[in-house]
Amino acid sequence: MFKSPQEVTRVTSIGAGPIGGGWAAHFLARGYDVTAYLHSEAEILAFRTILDTAWISLTDLGLAQEASLDRLTIETDLRKAVEGAEFIQESAPERLELKQDLYQQFDELVPKDVVICSSTSGLMMTDIQAKCSTPERTVIGHPFNPPYLLPLVEIIGGKRTSPEAVAWAGEFYEVAGKAPLMMKKEIPGFVATRLQEALWREALHMVANGEATPEDIDIALMNGPAPRMMAQGQCMAFHVACGEGGMATNLDQFGPALKLPWTRLEAPELSQELRDRMVDGCNDIAGDKHFADMAAQRDKEIVALINALKAARS
Amino acid sequence: MFKSPQEVTRVTSIGAGPIGGGWAAHFLARGYDVTAYLHSEAEILAFRTILDTAWISLTDLGLAQEASLDRLTIETDLRKAVEGAEFIQESAPERLELKQDLYQQFDELVPKDVVICSSTSGLMMTDIQAKCSTPERTVIGHPFNPPYLLPLVEIIGGKRTSPEAVAWAGEFYEVAGKAPLMMKKEIPGFVATRLQEALWREALHMVANGEATPEDIDIALMNGPAPRMMAQGQCMAFHVACGEGGMATNLDQFGPALKLPWTRLEAPELSQELRDRMVDGCNDIAGDKHFADMAAQRDKEIVALINALKAARS
Repeated sequence: MFKSPQEVTRVTSIGAGPIGGGWAAHFLARGYDVTAYLHSEAEILAFRTILDTAWISLTDLGLAQEASLDRLTIETDLRKAVEGAEFIQESAPERLELKQDLYQQFDELVPKDVVICSSTSGLMMTDIQAKCSTPERTVIGHPFNPPYLLPLVEIIGGKRTSPEAVAWAGEFYEVAGKAPLMMKKEIPGFVATRLQEALWREALHMVANGEATPEDIDIALMNGPAPRMMAQGQCMAFHVACGEGGMATNLDQFGPALKLPWTRLEAPELSQELRDRMVDGCNDIAGDKHFADMAAQRDKEIVALINALKAARS
Repeated sequence: MFKSPQEVTRVTSIGAGPIGGGWAAHFLARGYDVTAYLHSEAEILAFRTILDTAWISLTDLGLAQEASLDRLTIETDLRKAVEGAEFIQESAPERLELKQDLYQQFDELVPKDVVICSSTSGLMMTDIQAKCSTPERTVIGHPFNPPYLLPLVEIIGGKRTSPEAVAWAGEFYEVAGKAPLMMKKEIPGFVATRLQEALWREALHMVANGEATPEDIDIALMNGPAPRMMAQGQCMAFHVACGEGGMATNLDQFGPALKLPWTRLEAPELSQELRDRMVDGCNDIAGDKHFADMAAQRDKEIVALINALKAARS
């Protein structure tokens, strides 16, 4: 039904803000023909500035061979903007009614075999597609800001989205150079933002209680968890930090610490089932890699990251 | 009273585990004479392995001119181990009674003008120093694992610690090449671990509820928040992401989102005082730097980090 993700050459990015502009820049850098839909011509200048800024970084990251800013078309007429599009990334303002209206227009303007992904960070696709007559091809494709730099895209459909469209979106983003995360459930905040939000709320509590300043929070993160979290996620960081015993040792030994007041967020009950999901999950990621090799690779990566940051700051 | 931090040349690291071994490696790499206290000779082999592993990374990060593994002495007699030490880093097992006994021995063995820092991640210095007759010079100096790679050291005294000793520890760690964080209050989990723990508990909730797998958690973190959090902490990330308006725009615009179920942790009330602390804190960090320059520097750093990680993995 859908065109093969590998054959897509023409995408439309809806929205003139940092997310819409960032997406346009990303797709241009990957060598696509990009049409950008802006609400009005008054937005062109700001949009161009976002693009020019992003292009500096995208060039340093490495452009696709055919990539060119000349392959951008700007339209302020929605009908023209989506004409011929083989994929649409929608980054309109975060207002439900506005998005619902927009998706009703897509019903008319966009062939049913074109997948439309929304960048929304706060809305659910089930709600966005509520008034839509072609909901099957509408998916969430939530980037992380700045979208031209950070690879993550969180993908989930609404109640009326077809599983094929969700799978297609995951494959397409992968082809387009992103790191897709196929979500298991449609939940507020998705995965990355929920994790970040928990950390952020704890930070706000600490500042509210005079336990830390914003500067303390940032020093702590930049020099502590962040470099390790970029080399390994939090699960594998704990898995590898515990040596041969891995996540099983972590949970069996530090499980009781989940009851300690180390944050204002109460931990879930560490049931046998949760323990096994964590342990099995880490073992799956590790595959046949040995602990010592994973620790050595972690160290190599952290060293590379620290040295790179030092160089970028000097 | 205390020797100038710049004049310290001789430190003792207590403990044979990854933290004690990591500290010994760090101080050796910074060019100090290091005596390591191990509980028994049976620990020597494992301790040497930690050191050799750390040395690979420390060499890549850049050794101090005089740095040498030959400047390490291993002792299993505590009296000899602390003899002549100008600073002591204690990384004994995390058992309160054991640490209390140890600090009582320090009363006898270590001159009062030598600062002793504990690596503890779960205990409070007020409790560790409870039975101590020389508590004034005992401080928490909590590293982040692996301590030979991650720069963060969180510093806080107990109720009977002198402010001079706390200040001295901060200055000493700075001289010794670490990123000290002077904590405002003695709280469980300190700053970095609290933030990480909030994120970790949200992750466990998500896995418990079938909302994400451990692999999803790690993909989300590594490709989303982590690279940005290494270049900027979470406060400055939000400050700069909001453009000219900075943290004020973030809180005024997204404040209501703090009530949304984007994590299981309830946010604090966004009082005028909390808002001002966040805004003033970010403005202090930013100083006279302009938004566009900070955004450009963020992008430059994220590009460098992504490219460095790619190179380290290929």
